[in-house]
Amino acid sequence: MSKLNEECGVFAICNGNDDTDVASSVFLGLFALQHRGQEGAGISINRQGKLYIEKELGLVSDVFTKSRLSKLADADMAIGHVRYSTTGSSIRANVQPLLINHLKGNLSLAHNGNLTNASYLRELLENEGCIFHTSSDTEVIAYLITRNRMTCDSIESAISKTMETIKGAYSLVLMTKDKIVAARDPYGFRPLCLGKLNDRYVLTSESCALDAIKATFIRDIKPGEIVSIKGDKITSDETHCNKVPKALCVFELIYFARPDSKLDGISVHNSRVRAGSILAIENPIQADIVIGVPDSGIDAAIGYSRQSGIPYEVGLIKNKYIGRTFIEPLQEGREKSVSIKLNTVKSVIKGKRVVLVDDSIVRGTTSKQLVKLLRESGAKEVHFLSSAPKFLYPCYFGTDIDSSENLIAYKYTDEEMKEILNVDSIGFLSVNAVKKIGDVKCEGFCTACFSGDYPYKIDSDNKKERFDLNE
Amino acid sequence: MSKLNEECGVFAICNGNDDTDVASSVFLGLFALQHRGQEGAGISINRQGKLYIEKELGLVSDVFTKSRLSKLADADMAIGHVRYSTTGSSIRANVQPLLINHLKGNLSLAHNGNLTNASYLRELLENEGCIFHTSSDTEVIAYLITRNRMTCDSIESAISKTMETIKGAYSLVLMTKDKIVAARDPYGFRPLCLGKLNDRYVLTSESCALDAIKATFIRDIKPGEIVSIKGDKITSDETHCNKVPKALCVFELIYFARPDSKLDGISVHNSRVRAGSILAIENPIQADIVIGVPDSGIDAAIGYSRQSGIPYEVGLIKNKYIGRTFIEPLQEGREKSVSIKLNTVKSVIKGKRVVLVDDSIVRGTTSKQLVKLLRESGAKEVHFLSSAPKFLYPCYFGTDIDSSENLIAYKYTDEEMKEILNVDSIGFLSVNAVKKIGDVKCEGFCTACFSGDYPYKIDSDNKKERFDLNE
Amino acid sequence: MSKLNEECGVFAICNGNDDTDVASSVFLGLFALQHRGQEGAGISINRQGKLYIEKELGLVSDVFTKSRLSKLADADMAIGHVRYSTTGSSIRANVQPLLINHLKGNLSLAHNGNLTNASYLRELLENEGCIFHTSSDTEVIAYLITRNRMTCDSIESAISKTMETIKGAYSLVLMTKDKIVAARDPYGFRPLCLGKLNDRYVLTSESCALDAIKATFIRDIKPGEIVSIKGDKITSDETHCNKVPKALCVFELIYFARPDSKLDGISVHNSRVRAGSILAIENPIQADIVIGVPDSGIDAAIGYSRQSGIPYEVGLIKNKYIGRTFIEPLQEGREKSVSIKLNTVKSVIKGKRVVLVDDSIVRGTTSKQLVKLLRESGAKEVHFLSSAPKFLYPCYFGTDIDSSENLIAYKYTDEEMKEILNVDSIGFLSVNAVKKIGDVKCEGFCTACFSGDYPYKIDSDNKKERFDLNE
Amino acid sequence: MSKLNEECGVFAICNGNDDTDVASSVFLGLFALQHRGQEGAGISINRQGKLYIEKELGLVSDVFTKSRLSKLADADMAIGHVRYSTTGSSIRANVQPLLINHLKGNLSLAHNGNLTNASYLRELLENEGCIFHTSSDTEVIAYLITRNRMTCDSIESAISKTMETIKGAYSLVLMTKDKIVAARDPYGFRPLCLGKLNDRYVLTSESCALDAIKATFIRDIKPGEIVSIKGDKITSDETHCNKVPKALCVFELIYFARPDSKLDGISVHNSRVRAGSILAIENPIQADIVIGVPDSGIDAAIGYSRQSGIPYEVGLIKNKYIGRTFIEPLQEGREKSVSIKLNTVKSVIKGKRVVLVDDSIVRGTTSKQLVKLLRESGAKEVHFLSSAPKFLYPCYFGTDIDSSENLIAYKYTDEEMKEILNVDSIGFLSVNAVKKIGDVKCEGFCTACFSGDYPYKIDSDNKKERFDLNE
Repeated sequence: MSKLNEECGVFAICNGNDDTDVASSVFLGLFALQHRGQEGAGISINRQGKLYIEKELGLVSDVFTKSRLSKLADADMAIGHVRYSTTGSSIRANVQPLLINHLKGNLSLAHNGNLTNASYLRELLENEGCIFHTSSDTEVIAYLITRNRMTCDSIESAISKTMETIKGAYSLVLMTKDKIVAARDPYGFRPLCLGKLNDRYVLTSESCALDAIKATFIRDIKPGEIVSIKGDKITSDETHCNKVPKALCVFELIYFARPDSKLDGISVHNSRVRAGSILAIENPIQADIVIGVPDSGIDAAIGYSRQSGIPYEVGLIKNKYIGRTFIEPLQEGREKSVSIKLNTVKSVIKGKRVVLVDDSIVRGTTSKQLVKLLRESGAKEVHFLSSAPKFLYPCYFGTDIDSSENLIAYKYTDEEMKEILNVDSIGFLSVNAVKKIGDVKCEGFCTACFSGDYPYKIDSDNKKERFDLNE
Repeated sequence: MSKLNEECGVFAICNGNDDTDVASSVFLGLFALQHRGQEGAGISINRQGKLYIEKELGLVSDVFTKSRLSKLADADMAIGHVRYSTTGSSIRANVQPLLINHLKGNLSLAHNGNLTNASYLRELLENEGCIFHTSSDTEVIAYLITRNRMTCDSIESAISKTMETIKGAYSLVLMTKDKIVAARDPYGFRPLCLGKLNDRYVLTSESCALDAIKATFIRDIKPGEIVSIKGDKITSDETHCNKVPKALCVFELIYFARPDSKLDGISVHNSRVRAGSILAIENPIQADIVIGVPDSGIDAAIGYSRQSGIPYEVGLIKNKYIGRTFIEPLQEGREKSVSIKLNTVKSVIKGKRVVLVDDSIVRGTTSKQLVKLLRESGAKEVHFLSSAPKFLYPCYFGTDIDSSENLIAYKYTDEEMKEILNVDSIGFLSVNAVKKIGDVKCEGFCTACFSGDYPYKIDSDNKKERFDLNE
Repeated sequence: MSKLNEECGVFAICNGNDDTDVASSVFLGLFALQHRGQEGAGISINRQGKLYIEKELGLVSDVFTKSRLSKLADADMAIGHVRYSTTGSSIRANVQPLLINHLKGNLSLAHNGNLTNASYLRELLENEGCIFHTSSDTEVIAYLITRNRMTCDSIESAISKTMETIKGAYSLVLMTKDKIVAARDPYGFRPLCLGKLNDRYVLTSESCALDAIKATFIRDIKPGEIVSIKGDKITSDETHCNKVPKALCVFELIYFARPDSKLDGISVHNSRVRAGSILAIENPIQADIVIGVPDSGIDAAIGYSRQSGIPYEVGLIKNKYIGRTFIEPLQEGREKSVSIKLNTVKSVIKGKRVVLVDDSIVRGTTSKQLVKLLRESGAKEVHFLSSAPKFLYPCYFGTDIDSSENLIAYKYTDEEMKEILNVDSIGFLSVNAVKKIGDVKCEGFCTACFSGDYPYKIDSDNKKERFDLNE
Repeated sequence: MSKLNEECGVFAICNGNDDTDVASSVFLGLFALQHRGQEGAGISINRQGKLYIEKELGLVSDVFTKSRLSKLADADMAIGHVRYSTTGSSIRANVQPLLINHLKGNLSLAHNGNLTNASYLRELLENEGCIFHTSSDTEVIAYLITRNRMTCDSIESAISKTMETIKGAYSLVLMTKDKIVAARDPYGFRPLCLGKLNDRYVLTSESCALDAIKATFIRDIKPGEIVSIKGDKITSDETHCNKVPKALCVFELIYFARPDSKLDGISVHNSRVRAGSILAIENPIQADIVIGVPDSGIDAAIGYSRQSGIPYEVGLIKNKYIGRTFIEPLQEGREKSVSIKLNTVKSVIKGKRVVLVDDSIVRGTTSKQLVKLLRESGAKEVHFLSSAPKFLYPCYFGTDIDSSENLIAYKYTDEEMKEILNVDSIGFLSVNAVKKIGDVKCEGFCTACFSGDYPYKIDSDNKKERFDLNE
């Protein structure tokens, strides 16, 4: 694992009077959100008040073959989900949405985020005789909503009551027999926005999925907000809003989100270019060319080039057929070779002093190989810059950050890193600077993984923990 | 649907000191039990105290490819399950075993049978906030055992307590981190027996699965008995035994079970031959040959031939490649043609007065086509005999019997049936006779579907009912 | 390999004015011929004068999924082929029909049989610069027909000229842009017959495939005959007929063909019963029951029972889900265990003197395991009878007979075989008797594999030999 | 089809003494060449003098699963091929390499290019009785080499003799039982180069495939050269060299080849940047930003930006999961929408005068949609530039150029194109300029599709033509 992984993306499309092919729209939306989760994908539809589901491990385009998508035809509403990929806990039962068939009504639920008190809540529920089929937080949320629904007079108030209990990061979409409800945690860790396609409301983790189906962006869902949509009627419950400072994960801007998305009003591309510019101010270097590591280092490299005046070049080419299935046939170890994925443009590199910009450095293994590739291609100097600050602290809000002992910046000094990576200099964006990469005035970011400054105190007992069903 | 369907087969293999390949043994066991359920198959293993599962819709040999079976390697114990096939509720979530991951411990559960108070119990549990992921009775049982386990001091006593609550037919195998427990309902509706392979105990629905892995038959599990096996220690709890009269489903002998199995001491093959002999006594006919409908009518035809002296012949040949996948490519309707599955041996049939013996007549559609085939092949007379009595009443214990309005014997008189099927005579085994087909003294059969004589009063509210998750 | 394998089955359906679904009919025909070849299947259709093909390794029902069959829709005529299964040379290129796209016109060709001068002809053609893509005789035939077509004025005369060159066993169907032509070798080694479905002519290796599509049997194609069918016009060229004595492979009757087929007027089932009766005359035994090895030993067992008066019983049950895919997940060796495929009915066997009838004994390995199973089930005596004579000589006409050193009857005396198989006695049908198993007057059989009496002298240089492309 | 397609890429790795995993190396090489052909892939290996093959329709990573690659283990040498993708003639038989099993020896052949006299040669061969199984030129070449081999004393001289007969574009690799031979047509239309991995020679269409396996580039194969490699001995036959002027396809540099490759000494990336610079000189525009269409328009956009001083920006984002399988589930027409593949970065585009650079314009349909996307995102002006000249003439040398009536530049004037595409201006690189994009002195390019200036006169009868086997 050379990059961090995000946990999931969600998508929903509501009822309407047009003849939109609902399932195909969710398919396209999930395809646009694929970068947020490559482990599994699912779509749950509502056909005349009844809920159905299709989900499976795999990429969106592999899971949803023509024949599978045809089973979801004639839907009135639908929600969908993509799930991220790790080796360990990649079991089918965990693929979302979760479809609940209950006496009091059916519901489908898709969730992006991570609760910090999930283990505690799960234990509580199990002590009351609940059985869990998955190891995901989503089932905990489903249980709480279901139980609260028995004493609340609406699904919205059941969700509101559940939000009093659950702590952490969550952006939810939930579908019942006649409506779709969305909720975002009070800190707003993970993005969630609202759009419209003809007369149908659409909800999605990132705005790029609205573009994919040619829907119009309306607004972001506020941290703490519950939005309920029934046909063309939309109501908002702001009870949980503005109680705590906003804390959008800043790494969404730096790496997770697609550059063509806007999150809470901030253009991802622009914030990356801006990060590159600040990086140039904080790390001035004498060099001949600036190159970015495809794909997510490109924008910052352009920013660096603009600020510094050093020409931007295309020095690394990514094989565009790279994908999950690729590595299967190779022998152990070989698939880790960066040369399968990336190649240098020797005519560009040869004899040059190179500034190499990547979005971040996690373990340093890929970075080391990249530097080696550049040196073999004749680079005279290599200066490695990360447009993210150093990773030093765990994330409890949905980023699958490595344990500290694997984080190169945690273990080594700058001087040691220089030697390990065999570079002429190394540099990182400062924590202070990362708070300013938004191109609009931003109320607040979570920078905990860089600064250790958590939005709220994490109880040591409730720290994230993974359940293994049959891991 | 021209034949009735049984609900499921179970198999378990316990801990031992030999080097038996546990997963392969369950595979072979399930392959031998395939006739009890063609919809789905699953195996849950215990590897050093941890439980894992692989299951899927499909035939045993399709579900368990080499690569899937290899994921179950190095198991210490395992349980398995085959599920029957209908079109409607064939969803993957319902495939068993059910693996439960609970604070108080993990367990895998496989179940053959049908509860008569499942809806009632499920509603009760849902009112207490339980969420169900499947529409099967098995999850109801799992919930009850889990909840009872919190107040009972052992899994065995939790099962015993659960047996006070659940009503109906069940043969269960259950695996925890260190033992396997089996239970059979007090009426003994469905079979369950015990064998041994080297120093490992084996449990299975039918003894033919013991033969398949070269295990030795030990004894049948008693109706109401709970057997707990930990390594080579086996303990039995007979609290629920002998409280009610035994009621083994007689149709297990006539059709469901494999002829090479013994159920509660009765040879299935012998009971079918015996049914054919009694049929000959009850229905004497002047004819030239006796033929059986392959595969399950063959034994009774031989019995008829022996008793009557009329020569047994092979008049119908079954295509041995017939299977589930077969019908896919054909147009609507065509796959129902019996001629794809069966063909006559014209040289045998031509000019003959034929006694045609089948195990039963359900809707009569297949029978009608068979008679047509025989007549086209030159049969001078066709006499149709069923070695089961007439189907007249619903089954609540796990046989997927058709609604009465589809049962030919319920709707029509013998004379009308003769005309519909275009036969020279028609005959059924009598209800009195069916009770005597066992070749050993048998304590009692359930003959409710033929006689209406249910082992206990079925509360009209609790009658079987199917939940649809996303059917 | 415990049984011998046949090389292939062919099927063709001609043009007509009805709305028969041509591709589905070939599918059903091939499904009925599946026993003649389980390695691969193919269908070539003619749609408005253009030829298309779909073929693949695998069983008919696996190869022809709904989506693949749909590619063959709207056909006017079609031919199909099933190919037998061995491990070694099972390559996709060899799957038939062969579709030839030539300047002088297109043609599809399907072939059942084996040429004795194929290697010689192939070498000749290669010396003239021909390239071969497959290792099958079919391509040799295709080349010769194509070359002859350049100098002949019709496809029929090109085939006739080709028949002067090729030697051996062949039953061919060939489709051009507007007709279907069939040919059978002058000895008639392999069967081929003609039927009619509405106004369409149908050609097939065995009559059971006519029954499968509800077509009417018309007549067998004569040895040496060339039949050409264009719409409802059928012409016959008998130039090559009656030049040599007929030599239908007698093992087609004993084992290869389906019991519900008639070959050259002979009922397969009847000839097997007859073989069993003669076996009883030639091998009288004092015993309690006669049982047959399913499926192909059943008929002879019934014949033995009738002649001897010893009761016929069902003592061995075959798992009806057995198939090609089955063995994959098992460890080396285990899949060879006969107990996975067959089980005894212990209540039938126990304490009995058993006559066990099988269609043939090849290596003896399966037979040995069967006897062991019977003895373990309590058989007091086991007498093993083969309804075929002893295999002693190679077959050059399409039966994949083992090399002599693997043939038990070639290597050992009767006394030695008795000991190896652990039986109380062993018996074979005599070579003289096998010539009389037909129930109608039959002009002549090939019994070479039993008698060494070949219909013509096989040149030692031209003996069959396999080419390996990428085996 | 919005882009032109190239016909294929080839790869070969020779014998050596190291323990290189030969099949995996070809796999990696083909994976790096995937952009040259996405329809099918194949690898033929030589294991101790015997040739084997695995090939299939699909992407390299889909065709070569772990299990398929394992069948090619322990190879001494190997050749591989990727084939391009069109809908029509995409049949499995055409997938390469072609494995020929001939009396005089076996050979595998992979070919990149297109013969202009293939139809003529094929007809000639068919008139001599040859049968063709594929519709590819490769089989024609195979036939000629095989026939010539009978009269020539070596495979090299057979190839040389064949080169006297065949006309057109070809870069061949051919493997026999003990050597690998490569040949490039005298005009050098398609690239082919030589490298070394340890002590093994490697041949490949593009140098990027050498980088992928960490091999060292040695030199390009000369136009007309035949190179024969047996172990570490390499011999070259230059008989056909320098007879005609060199004519490397210039569109290889503009679009087909990977930017990290060098062709005949020319860096592809550099030549694209250079094309962009000349484009800026030939088409000066007043604008705010320059953006490139990913992926192949990026380099030219950077060149334009550098020359013009207008800032380079990332204005279009490509979904990195786009692939062949993607389009399957969508309704007719929808998959053609460019918005599934590309999205704008609105914050970059809004209010700007945009220079949009693409590598070429074929039909104009994609270009039109792109302009629409930009306008919807708020672009004030859109200027469309193509770094290739106008497509006006057919290509007979392996580029799948559309028929003239679909080429927008053939049908319309610049003014009309401006209106159709709805742009403020439109511009193309001039034919004169395209000849100068190489960064080293280049002997000559084929620019026929732009200029109509063919390297040799194409006989109207011999123009390319496609055969449909079962299209």
